[in-house]
Amino acid sequence: MRPLPRQISEDVVKYKIAPEKDVDCFSPINVSKVMSGDNDGFAPCTPAAVIEILDYYGIGLEGKRAVLIGRSMVVGRPLAMMLLKRNATVTICHTRTKNLPQETQRAEILIAAAGKARMVTKDMVSEGAVVIDVGINFDENGKMCGDVDFDSVSPIAGQITPVPGGVGSVTSTVLAKHVIEAFKLQQGL
Amino acid sequence: MRPLPRQISEDVVKYKIAPEKDVDCFSPINVSKVMSGDNDGFAPCTPAAVIEILDYYGIGLEGKRAVLIGRSMVVGRPLAMMLLKRNATVTICHTRTKNLPQETQRAEILIAAAGKARMVTKDMVSEGAVVIDVGINFDENGKMCGDVDFDSVSPIAGQITPVPGGVGSVTSTVLAKHVIEAFKLQQGL
Repeated sequence: MRPLPRQISEDVVKYKIAPEKDVDCFSPINVSKVMSGDNDGFAPCTPAAVIEILDYYGIGLEGKRAVLIGRSMVVGRPLAMMLLKRNATVTICHTRTKNLPQETQRAEILIAAAGKARMVTKDMVSEGAVVIDVGINFDENGKMCGDVDFDSVSPIAGQITPVPGGVGSVTSTVLAKHVIEAFKLQQGL
Repeated sequence: MRPLPRQISEDVVKYKIAPEKDVDCFSPINVSKVMSGDNDGFAPCTPAAVIEILDYYGIGLEGKRAVLIGRSMVVGRPLAMMLLKRNATVTICHTRTKNLPQETQRAEILIAAAGKARMVTKDMVSEGAVVIDVGINFDENGKMCGDVDFDSVSPIAGQITPVPGGVGSVTSTVLAKHVIEAFKLQQGL
């Protein structure tokens, strides 16, 4: 699972790891499956956790405007593909996006994966939007926080995930699930 | 190059083809490189042609709102990743998108890859938008046409590609370029 220890290069490992053991989607075989919407590989754990949360709470994605902040290979890009597979209309924003609030205000489902403490403020979120916070940051007081300013955003959001205790917790569970699936694959179960 | 003849399964070929011969991006190795923004593989020819056209005419992508219609593995999905690499803010629309005109009207760069004859009409395009038409269709009279209703859209578009003689022509040239690059790779040139 990412991040790897410094002495191990992901660019080397990704070509060597067996796709059926690749529980956090390093292998191009699995990356390619995520991109093409083929569910029989392993998706990266964090975006898979986001989808699990949306499913668990019965939040439909069909035809919804989903806006992502962040375009990493760990979250933003694969999650965009996974949301597309669920028939959402997907917008991917990032550091170079002009007028970010204008984009995020349009979101019915807003997913923050920017890695910047409390950057999503109240004025960026529409009344009733579902807000999923993927960020894990530490503020100036060393307190863990997400990419979303929870206190100001939660009164207007329809639903919102906290940090800690939100996506991160589910990600660990997804990892465990993937490990079990990988075991089954290798045992032909 | 896609589409393959009926007796050849792309799902088999993509795992067998050598990445360095894979001039239209079947191999997961190349798909994964396109997704991660790694330029040293082969991108699919059609989205590569779209980027070539934008570059040739000096149309900057940085911070621009690019809206795609279509989410295929041949055009929409890889092109979304390639536009992202150029720092565009990317929205991917498709058949399940609600209120498509509302999305497309926001486009500074609109790329139609839906495969539906003249579906992009004047009311869907903003004054001055750059319109790239990837569609190759035949209308009820057997005449080749794009996804864009060229006659009504061209007066308001800032720039627009025709069909035929637009993206398709450049795609063939990109294929030739990829074949030469593949030859060089195999000869170590």
